[in-house]
Amino acid sequence: MGAHLIGLDWGSSSLRAMLIDAGGAALETRTSTAGASTLDGSPAAFSAALDALIGDWRDKALPMLACGMVGSQHGWREVPYADCPSDARALANGALSVDWRGQYLRLLPGLRCETPAGVPDVMRGEETQVLGALQLRPDLAARSCIVMPGTHSKWARVRDGAVQDFATHMSGELYALLRQHSVLGRLMPAGEAGTGFVEGVSAARDQGAAGLSHQLFAVRTLGLTGRLPHEALSGYLSGLLIGHELRAGLAELDQGAPLLLVGEPALCARYAAALDLFGRPAVPVLPNTAAAGLQRLATLI
Amino acid sequence: MGAHLIGLDWGSSSLRAMLIDAGGAALETRTSTAGASTLDGSPAAFSAALDALIGDWRDKALPMLACGMVGSQHGWREVPYADCPSDARALANGALSVDWRGQYLRLLPGLRCETPAGVPDVMRGEETQVLGALQLRPDLAARSCIVMPGTHSKWARVRDGAVQDFATHMSGELYALLRQHSVLGRLMPAGEAGTGFVEGVSAARDQGAAGLSHQLFAVRTLGLTGRLPHEALSGYLSGLLIGHELRAGLAELDQGAPLLLVGEPALCARYAAALDLFGRPAVPVLPNTAAAGLQRLATLI
Repeated sequence: MGAHLIGLDWGSSSLRAMLIDAGGAALETRTSTAGASTLDGSPAAFSAALDALIGDWRDKALPMLACGMVGSQHGWREVPYADCPSDARALANGALSVDWRGQYLRLLPGLRCETPAGVPDVMRGEETQVLGALQLRPDLAARSCIVMPGTHSKWARVRDGAVQDFATHMSGELYALLRQHSVLGRLMPAGEAGTGFVEGVSAARDQGAAGLSHQLFAVRTLGLTGRLPHEALSGYLSGLLIGHELRAGLAELDQGAPLLLVGEPALCARYAAALDLFGRPAVPVLPNTAAAGLQRLATLI
Repeated sequence: MGAHLIGLDWGSSSLRAMLIDAGGAALETRTSTAGASTLDGSPAAFSAALDALIGDWRDKALPMLACGMVGSQHGWREVPYADCPSDARALANGALSVDWRGQYLRLLPGLRCETPAGVPDVMRGEETQVLGALQLRPDLAARSCIVMPGTHSKWARVRDGAVQDFATHMSGELYALLRQHSVLGRLMPAGEAGTGFVEGVSAARDQGAAGLSHQLFAVRTLGLTGRLPHEALSGYLSGLLIGHELRAGLAELDQGAPLLLVGEPALCARYAAALDLFGRPAVPVLPNTAAAGLQRLATLI
């Protein structure tokens, strides 16, 4: 099967371009650091970023579709959010076009919902991951919760093929901030999180009512008192943050809904291990599903 | 009444020296930025910092007593923590001396406790504030909870004049981190928190089970969608963080215990306003009570 679509997953800090076949598989993938927030916001800058990465794909004259922050207020062109509940058709209907050297590039909208607190929540790009995941796991379209770990993790509740609502958790950004800039980071050696993760998740699960901002201080005291080796402190911090995310996310779920993890495999594996500790073992994992989602949406445009 | 004591409140980032009378009042106060963590850890550096600030007080030949990080691992001399429950006598008994140009300076220990999660918590300096507060409000010595807002807020439970246990909340540090380094700070104009505080506290009170790391993201979406003016976002962030601290702190309290706020008046006023929203109106406030605490402890050494 040959390529049917040029798909772009164009986030804040990176751009990923894919040649996608009719089955939703990426035949070729190229990435660059020309994320939407790294450019100056002008159409010329976005256009030039595409020239640099996939200038040689122009001659293929394939349809082109993009998801992510490229459609935000500071993107190539602002594409208004679609409101939840929203399915593939609603998203496809909301796409707007820009011109890349005489070719149409369609930009997908993000999603917006109203949380139970009466506060808006938003995503741009993850909605396409959700649709891709449902292409690959159609058994989950009727009812599921799709968890996409990351800097800003998203928990999307799916019913009848539509995203009903979702919640963002800033766990990844908090981890990076606390590690780099807080008093907690000072005791941590450089490098990846080692042991300590299970202890952190367990503390959040069992004692989370004591509050995240209290439990975070334990990262320091456990290090200072030698209860945990310094090599385990970043793992403990990661476990605390993910544990608090699960504590809140699972409490909001309708209880029987199957879970699915979508995203970077190593991070998803940490979430799966944490979910196991919360009594949700063997949650399936899919890597980035943007290609399948873009292909599905392209058929509706 | 003349000065009976030179008291030092020597924290990480600042040094405050006081001439204290027999009633525990500061007759004169001098401050410097020579905090314990700004010095190189050598006795000579600590000694020189005192020379610069109160060299002319040496001739008074008064007893000298210090609390705070000056007694930590990286301080002038490490003074082992006293374990909770702990009262004034236990703290006074734990003091160790250093030599400042031929005069004794006694350094007080900090306090350590074990939280219900089986994790240690620590304070250095706030234990002296607690004792000072109980000098000024002896009616609270039998049973109370003393809340000391700050970078690392402390909630100390008092029974029969002794600190039973306590909890640290990193609310102040999280506020600074999120404001300076996170995606949330980008929408906030410079300057003090304005409106938005009540809304943030209320969101934490009513919807806090959704999780701090989720609710934090609302600071961004409320700004992006224009639901809150950008001038109100830092107030909302402050309200969310303080609200989550109160949510957790009040849940751990034995319900009837009277509360007392001790610390910087403007910050204490924010906590008092938040406590009012949590149904705890008119909580009394005392400014820094270190002088009274140091005087009380000096009588026991």
